Amino acid sequence: MPITPPALRPGDQVAIVGTARKVSFEEMAAAVEILTGWGLRVVLGESITAEHHQFAGPDELRARDLQQQLDNPDIRAVICARGGYGTTRIIDQLDFSGFARHPKWIAGFSDITALNCHLLRLGYESIHGVMAFIFNQTGGDESLESLRRALFGESVSYSAPAHPLNRFGTAVGELVGGNLSLLQNLTGTASDCPTAGRILFLEDIAEYLMNVDRMLVHLDRTGKLRDLAGLLVGHFTDPQDNAIPFGQTAYEIIDTYARKYNFPVAYSFPVGHEPQNMALICGRRARLVVGAQGTRLEYAD
Amino acid sequence: MPITPPALRPGDQVAIVGTARKVSFEEMAAAVEILTGWGLRVVLGESITAEHHQFAGPDELRARDLQQQLDNPDIRAVICARGGYGTTRIIDQLDFSGFARHPKWIAGFSDITALNCHLLRLGYESIHGVMAFIFNQTGGDESLESLRRALFGESVSYSAPAHPLNRFGTAVGELVGGNLSLLQNLTGTASDCPTAGRILFLEDIAEYLMNVDRMLVHLDRTGKLRDLAGLLVGHFTDPQDNAIPFGQTAYEIIDTYARKYNFPVAYSFPVGHEPQNMALICGRRARLVVGAQGTRLEYAD
Repeated sequence: MPITPPALRPGDQVAIVGTARKVSFEEMAAAVEILTGWGLRVVLGESITAEHHQFAGPDELRARDLQQQLDNPDIRAVICARGGYGTTRIIDQLDFSGFARHPKWIAGFSDITALNCHLLRLGYESIHGVMAFIFNQTGGDESLESLRRALFGESVSYSAPAHPLNRFGTAVGELVGGNLSLLQNLTGTASDCPTAGRILFLEDIAEYLMNVDRMLVHLDRTGKLRDLAGLLVGHFTDPQDNAIPFGQTAYEIIDTYARKYNFPVAYSFPVGHEPQNMALICGRRARLVVGAQGTRLEYAD
Repeated sequence: MPITPPALRPGDQVAIVGTARKVSFEEMAAAVEILTGWGLRVVLGESITAEHHQFAGPDELRARDLQQQLDNPDIRAVICARGGYGTTRIIDQLDFSGFARHPKWIAGFSDITALNCHLLRLGYESIHGVMAFIFNQTGGDESLESLRRALFGESVSYSAPAHPLNRFGTAVGELVGGNLSLLQNLTGTASDCPTAGRILFLEDIAEYLMNVDRMLVHLDRTGKLRDLAGLLVGHFTDPQDNAIPFGQTAYEIIDTYARKYNFPVAYSFPVGHEPQNMALICGRRARLVVGAQGTRLEYAD
């Protein structure tokens, strides 16, 4: 059973760190204000406002910043600034021994799937949820509130309306997943997570449908679908297509592979690159119920 | 040491099979004429002219067609019709026991990297080279002749001009590689090839530079670069970039990771999605010499 970092309490200190794409000071202002409003003290890591091409500073700087926050026992959570790309470039340079002495919440999604999976592989829960860059996005209040509840250890449960491709059933298992492209990119690395007996969640953005299919084939060929307890499919936002259309939507593609097996599957789950992006605790045992009335996910403990 | 299929002889029968993207009869005409001109008898598989969205027929049809050619001892080589996407969808359905009794050459590249790697994993050489669809491409005479020589067991050697990023040295090892996206997509599957002690070759087309970097990080994190004998870098055609430029060319990205190690590296090698796409025999032991005068690759036996 993965280790749960301590819940935040008012007065705690949290850090915002850029592990991937660069952000400006202005882009962090709303997050600082909101986190402060939650009673937290906010530290901006040296990666915030740092720049190296697309990245929030060179690899060395981003790794050093995150390392410092991991090592500092007074920092009780790390909120990732933004996704994009760059986390896998630094992940093997990190030393989690300080973190292991004082586990803390780390939150993010998209490129941060790399950290979520790496932490789960090491035996720790982490949060797949909205990042500092989009704390003030229009329509994102519920997502932000779900992140707050997850950080402060308050109970959460989520529901989604029925979807015609849903496959009914009940599953109990630890949550694992995130961005499909990142999951592919972690295959066979030190950050790769087993999925057997777990509830896998998937989302992606701006992917060619052909490539969604290719990545599903990859997931399936590595045995990652076969032994799932259940599957949650979030947003596949802004799909791209070829001159000759692929002929299936992203959900239809996923259905093709999911129906080889018998686990329950829920589509249109509110996770991914849209304002409805509920915080999911990676590694937490959850109960998924998919039925005619829709989908319900709650933690099993 | 991988098994070498028998060289073709005039009068032999070869099949053209579509394992990936669909092709028309007209698109195969030049290949049929050229292969016939080489003294071969050409069989068009049932996948040729078959259609299922982007594919040369449904998975079942493409798998059945390739299986039939693999099993038929009178078919002495399979020339893949075209790349695109689709080969990984059928590869685990194939039975190579008939092929093992009567090994034969299989030739293709791009999406066919999946077959090249799968065959090498099974212990057989295969050809990474031009496909039927582009047998008559402008400027492709030398590539086509290199495929003919490889199929007929004639000696081949290749050279490339000096490139400023080249890293000098000599390497001897079996050739392995192909399309970078496909290599990523094979990671951890039954088609994944070890690279240790081998000469890896890479090419890709229309990839975002960010994604080239991410795939190189993936290759490196799975240990696929660390123990290479040498690296051959072919065409990275039509690279895409983000609104914030990545800041490195594909070759500069590869150089970043290659120079962590000490093997020789040759850029601008004539392999990939351009007319200069020389046939490479996957699994064949080769000698790579990279020096001030340029690059030379010849088979070591």
